[in-house]
Amino acid sequence: MWIEILGAAAGGGFPQWNCACPNCRAVRAGTFQGKPRTQTQVAVSGDGKDWFLLNASPDLRIQIEATPALHPKTFSTRDGVRDSPIQGVVLTGADVDQAWGLLLLRELQPLHIYASASVRRILCADNSMFGMLRRQSGQTKWTDVRPDEAFDLTNIQGKSCGLHCRALPMARRYPAYVSAEALAKLSSEEAVFGLMIESASGGKLAYLPAVAEVTDALLDVLEGVDLVLFDGTFWSDDELIRVQGSGQTARAMGHLPVSSTLERLASLRRPRKIFLHINNTNPILNEACDEHARVRAAGWEIAEDGWQIQL
Amino acid sequence: MWIEILGAAAGGGFPQWNCACPNCRAVRAGTFQGKPRTQTQVAVSGDGKDWFLLNASPDLRIQIEATPALHPKTFSTRDGVRDSPIQGVVLTGADVDQAWGLLLLRELQPLHIYASASVRRILCADNSMFGMLRRQSGQTKWTDVRPDEAFDLTNIQGKSCGLHCRALPMARRYPAYVSAEALAKLSSEEAVFGLMIESASGGKLAYLPAVAEVTDALLDVLEGVDLVLFDGTFWSDDELIRVQGSGQTARAMGHLPVSSTLERLASLRRPRKIFLHINNTNPILNEACDEHARVRAAGWEIAEDGWQIQL
Repeated sequence: MWIEILGAAAGGGFPQWNCACPNCRAVRAGTFQGKPRTQTQVAVSGDGKDWFLLNASPDLRIQIEATPALHPKTFSTRDGVRDSPIQGVVLTGADVDQAWGLLLLRELQPLHIYASASVRRILCADNSMFGMLRRQSGQTKWTDVRPDEAFDLTNIQGKSCGLHCRALPMARRYPAYVSAEALAKLSSEEAVFGLMIESASGGKLAYLPAVAEVTDALLDVLEGVDLVLFDGTFWSDDELIRVQGSGQTARAMGHLPVSSTLERLASLRRPRKIFLHINNTNPILNEACDEHARVRAAGWEIAEDGWQIQL
Repeated sequence: MWIEILGAAAGGGFPQWNCACPNCRAVRAGTFQGKPRTQTQVAVSGDGKDWFLLNASPDLRIQIEATPALHPKTFSTRDGVRDSPIQGVVLTGADVDQAWGLLLLRELQPLHIYASASVRRILCADNSMFGMLRRQSGQTKWTDVRPDEAFDLTNIQGKSCGLHCRALPMARRYPAYVSAEALAKLSSEEAVFGLMIESASGGKLAYLPAVAEVTDALLDVLEGVDLVLFDGTFWSDDELIRVQGSGQTARAMGHLPVSSTLERLASLRRPRKIFLHINNTNPILNEACDEHARVRAAGWEIAEDGWQIQL
């Protein structure tokens, strides 16, 4: 399996447009010991040719341009033909930073989109802009993903791309923009998924950008994979409140703090472990600080834009 | 008046993610005689401190980071406070590349948004995601803009920012994603605006990123301004059809081709004249080609990301 980490920051990116926190100020000033990051985006491939996006970030346009594997093929049969190695997108939720980049893929390109029926409903029934994805017949095909059920990733013509998936139901929490009236029509089990992805050659990836809680069952699943890409949004539970002066705790937002994850997953032996979806306020971004050192000492890595991994 | 051109390409940007046209291929290969461009975005200020965005492009996050005038002030009263010199946004339409970037400004920052009632209805009533802009009281204030009526730009508290505007009704054409049912509730005069903006010191800007037709009345208006930022989407009427093999003419999409604009506006004497909103297929992007030379010989400039202008 080929994996490209196109972006590793949480929603808003790092730096975030309206944030003057010490991290964001230092990265703008060029004095930060660490790297800026675009919003979390991962691409996977079973053969290194056909690719699937895991979610669709608002930074997708520049992320695709920064990733040669995702460029249109240049041996097109005639000048100017539109083309992409991106066959589809698997959505793990309907947050703006997970789903909104679909509209960056609106240029009449065939796409197979995998999402829960509830997430599809939010996007297609409650947001008319997503009509840009069905301007012509055969532009997009949506496949409903059910909690705990397995599915193969295929292109829009149904050709298998050598990747086998399973959706793990995570937090039962829909985005803040979903109205109470809309919520009544949604299944709480379909709000947020994690993904288990296995290639034909046996490589196994767990993609978990939003983890509210680690159950013993999840811990068992993680022990069986080669690579874990895990929720690294906040270091501490009250981080955003301290920076903004108000707001929600990390746990209330559906994110186990990294400091707690290090303890909870301390026994995990087999997989390579990487944090991603890192908020601009998270001290682990700063390579000079103690929290960064603690994460590294615990055997975890901290994802950067542009990382390539092969399983 | 201070003007920053943050982006100068049409929807999709240059290069465009799924385009293998000669322009896009060459810019990716590093052999193009010309520059890549992000999607069209302009910011204006009456005092160089408080800024308003003209539309909100999907590339807004990186455009803000590339523009120091739009960064949060670093002399915040305490660490981490959220802040922005961006006071508001004036929308000229509801196209994805005009309006969708509003969601990039979702981090609870106060914003004054100016749009026609019809455009506001499309965004706020038919797209639940824009609920992210009203998560807390006082986050956004929307002011209805009526065709041909004048209005002052104020911040959300009502403080004047020294810029006086007028909306010029342009094409009576709503985006392709707006359903027939939704269209029935919209005013055809409120679909697409051009903007006339005047500063307290008398500088006058005409912002016209989508012009289907130049009437004699519009020509008179343009003769009275200092700077025209004008629709440069396509060179020729059948450009997109030739590249894609199908599609609409430039005029059918609401864009007078540049080749026709050069003739129609040949008599325009007073203003500085700049094309922007340039599609990736437009030959004027290529500084080595005849079309580029013709535009320059006619006294027009071709906008690039990062241009700063003071009137």
